[in-house]
Amino acid sequence: MSRNLLLISTSTTHGTGYLEHAAEEVRALLEGKKNLLFIPYARPGGISHSDYTATVREAFAKWDINVTGVHASDDPVKAVHEAEAVFIGGGNTFVLLRNLYANKLVAPLQQRVLKGMPYMGTSAGTNVAGKTIGTTNDMPIVHVKTFDALQLVPFNINPHYQDPVEHSTHMGETRETRIAEFHHHNRQPVVGLREGSMLRVQGDHITLKGPLTARIFLQGEKPMEFAPGDDINFLLEAY
Amino acid sequence: MSRNLLLISTSTTHGTGYLEHAAEEVRALLEGKKNLLFIPYARPGGISHSDYTATVREAFAKWDINVTGVHASDDPVKAVHEAEAVFIGGGNTFVLLRNLYANKLVAPLQQRVLKGMPYMGTSAGTNVAGKTIGTTNDMPIVHVKTFDALQLVPFNINPHYQDPVEHSTHMGETRETRIAEFHHHNRQPVVGLREGSMLRVQGDHITLKGPLTARIFLQGEKPMEFAPGDDINFLLEAY
Repeated sequence: MSRNLLLISTSTTHGTGYLEHAAEEVRALLEGKKNLLFIPYARPGGISHSDYTATVREAFAKWDINVTGVHASDDPVKAVHEAEAVFIGGGNTFVLLRNLYANKLVAPLQQRVLKGMPYMGTSAGTNVAGKTIGTTNDMPIVHVKTFDALQLVPFNINPHYQDPVEHSTHMGETRETRIAEFHHHNRQPVVGLREGSMLRVQGDHITLKGPLTARIFLQGEKPMEFAPGDDINFLLEAY
Repeated sequence: MSRNLLLISTSTTHGTGYLEHAAEEVRALLEGKKNLLFIPYARPGGISHSDYTATVREAFAKWDINVTGVHASDDPVKAVHEAEAVFIGGGNTFVLLRNLYANKLVAPLQQRVLKGMPYMGTSAGTNVAGKTIGTTNDMPIVHVKTFDALQLVPFNINPHYQDPVEHSTHMGETRETRIAEFHHHNRQPVVGLREGSMLRVQGDHITLKGPLTARIFLQGEKPMEFAPGDDINFLLEAY
């Protein structure tokens, strides 16, 4: 498989600009590319597709990469088939996946990615790269006919992963408890990707990037921490 | 309508025992009742139906109320039809709603509640009393064919409501942002019910109970705070 993916936990870390913390990896992913197809369907905060695309366009201008929003195309499927590279931005994962299905983009994205088209996602765009959206943190503000996602990798991702807050008086479930509940019903691995972390997938090789460790949850096992540089290729052998 | 509901944000507040903070209201709701049908489908932390029911049974024993788990019945629909009162406990809202549909309990619960059978819920059990589960905080760990819930009230509830954390470096959406995104796609009011708060519904009258204010979100309007004792009957006129 000639996958070429960059799956980023969050577009913006505290105190840095849009995609700034991931700049080096973004440039490596898109090396030699002049045009990027942006999929703005997740609409963070309800922002319009055009406004969202404008923000992203500005961010990529400094890298001399031209950004087009898929919503501006009369034929989104054709736009995906002709794209040099695709970026799906963050927002609400349910809204995003619903729109990917409504616009019949799931299969075309899968086909192009398997043939090596570079794909990057942030937050919700990283969630939908996984097996299902079953480990999103987002509210289910719209219904989706299935939680099956793009399945560009055979595991699930939990972006914005948060460790339990010490001395918290809040009685809602911790992120770790929620993922343990997930594993009562699902068997695929879950990668808790902290803010500032990202996964780089090249073919059948996966590496953790960024300054932090990632927390990996396997069904029936204790959560494990992996550092950048550790071998985590077992994640690509999940089924 | 002769509704008789108690919708509790959380079963346990920090530093108090199970249902302790809501004891007065629980006793008022169940006055004169000897038997309570418990629906353990939400399985917090993946606990078994039997273990969950045992915990609840112990809590109600001190009020001389006998608890039966609906899972122990060969005919759950009949169990609902014959129940003196029903309690749906917290856990995962998706797992809960999926099981309510799978066991064909949605319509029977609606029928009984409209005729005055007392209903209480905590957390996920409060979520499913609303119009949809679109404002749950839970992970979508199983798929549900629809997010339409029991609709015992015509609005949505967000239990464990949390105010934005000051000076947070976390870049995930605040609860308020998530609810604003919900209102880009849905028009029903949302009640942000903080831990320790509960809603008491008697016929067409609704009151906020507990020590805190509740944050109410109407589509297209600024969020509003209402205190216990304030008139919030407009919530029951939503459509």
